[in-house]
Amino acid sequence: MLIVLNYAGVVVFAATGALAASRKQLDLIGFLFFAAITGVGGGTLRDLILGQVPVFWVREPAYIVVCVVTAIVVFFTAHLIEWRYRLLIWLDAVGLAAYSVMGAALGLAASGSPTIAMVTGTLTATCGGVLRDLLAEEPSVLLRPEIYISAALAGAGAFTAAEAAGLPSYASSAAGFGVALALRGGAI
Amino acid sequence: MLIVLNYAGVVVFAATGALAASRKQLDLIGFLFFAAITGVGGGTLRDLILGQVPVFWVREPAYIVVCVVTAIVVFFTAHLIEWRYRLLIWLDAVGLAAYSVMGAALGLAASGSPTIAMVTGTLTATCGGVLRDLLAEEPSVLLRPEIYISAALAGAGAFTAAEAAGLPSYASSAAGFGVALALRGGAI
Amino acid sequence: MLIVLNYAGVVVFAATGALAASRKQLDLIGFLFFAAITGVGGGTLRDLILGQVPVFWVREPAYIVVCVVTAIVVFFTAHLIEWRYRLLIWLDAVGLAAYSVMGAALGLAASGSPTIAMVTGTLTATCGGVLRDLLAEEPSVLLRPEIYISAALAGAGAFTAAEAAGLPSYASSAAGFGVALALRGGAI
Repeated sequence: MLIVLNYAGVVVFAATGALAASRKQLDLIGFLFFAAITGVGGGTLRDLILGQVPVFWVREPAYIVVCVVTAIVVFFTAHLIEWRYRLLIWLDAVGLAAYSVMGAALGLAASGSPTIAMVTGTLTATCGGVLRDLLAEEPSVLLRPEIYISAALAGAGAFTAAEAAGLPSYASSAAGFGVALALRGGAI
Repeated sequence: MLIVLNYAGVVVFAATGALAASRKQLDLIGFLFFAAITGVGGGTLRDLILGQVPVFWVREPAYIVVCVVTAIVVFFTAHLIEWRYRLLIWLDAVGLAAYSVMGAALGLAASGSPTIAMVTGTLTATCGGVLRDLLAEEPSVLLRPEIYISAALAGAGAFTAAEAAGLPSYASSAAGFGVALALRGGAI
Repeated sequence: MLIVLNYAGVVVFAATGALAASRKQLDLIGFLFFAAITGVGGGTLRDLILGQVPVFWVREPAYIVVCVVTAIVVFFTAHLIEWRYRLLIWLDAVGLAAYSVMGAALGLAASGSPTIAMVTGTLTATCGGVLRDLLAEEPSVLLRPEIYISAALAGAGAFTAAEAAGLPSYASSAAGFGVALALRGGAI
């Protein structure tokens, strides 16, 4: 379940990175770069902070291959899509939800502290999008008057609370994912 | 003494982050996010570079609690303060002074090299504020025509020199803190 | 050979950082800061991701001394140069080429994966310049309509391919360096 969420997070964030590259009219390599930075950025920061190095995509290069494939698909189809920005925002919401659970699960496993789980969940979920906007010189998702950080924090919190209540891992994950996506999706 | 300086640095930098969130009219969770990023950002980079992972606030979640409390206090009082920007700049100066000593002390302990101590002191002291300005899309403290990096470097240098001269730890710390605060405070 | 490339990368990137500080009319300490951030930024991210901590310049403080000397030389000569921006761009190209090989070599040694080698090569080569432009609030090299990321990726790819073909290390390094510099230089 966690591996599925991690790959889902990488794919949708990679797609938002590639869409940002598309809006900036970069070349294919630019698509690859932004897809990779956005796709694995949040998880990289999470692994660094928890001291789990080499980071996950060095241990498992398939994540990079996923980013590359996603970037190529977006490169050859993005110009067909008229609502690129809207798609980017929705994919970003799915990635945010997936990564808030992933980050919280790994933070909880590494530290045993619910406080840390909520922080790493929120950081993992928001950092990819923040990096993307920063490097693409777009207005940061952080400063928009919408629920963004809150959705990540709520998802991480719901997961952590469900784990503390003794729910099985797939139920906690579904709870965290659902809460984050509902909050963020409702705010778009 | 070093623990006091670390907590002092976290509190005042967290307060500057929350004040930046206030200037951007973010919600409470935005206050928490900016308080945490600014409060622990410099120390996180320091720990990563020195290889001391998990980073300090994962080992000691109380630092996160301190950021949360600081953010909540600022959230409910910031609108009462007319001189928010001025307060931010002064708190930033205190944080800069505290973190220049902390960063230098930990860098010296980890590497034994005065050169590295001065670099980690300067990085720790400036990185929180740089991150805050970058993510809040404010003009960076780095580029203002004031003494900023210099004060951090001077504080780290004074601490390192005092340690090399064999002074007791509290005296070196006080020397570094005093030099950095005097230089930065005089330049505001 | 790799050590030469690493020092060469640090010197030329440090010089571009100092030139950026010069364009922003910072003081000597500002030159030092930007020289150090740009000179060692890419390699620092590479070491963090590969889990090789403390990072290279903490293990070998001479790299910091090199940045300091470079910054001082640029500080006292930059105003004599009329074509500072042009020089910055060319030095950046040399640093990009050197770091694409260095990053790929270390990534390959640490992970054994050619995919990872190409990623760490590209990241190491581009990250210093990205950080410099971000902190100096200049338009990012990433978004210019020139070959930048592509040159880094091509250099890292050429090195990795030459290694896989069993070429001696100095030949692989020269191939990677040459490919990256030719591509980037041709695009300036």
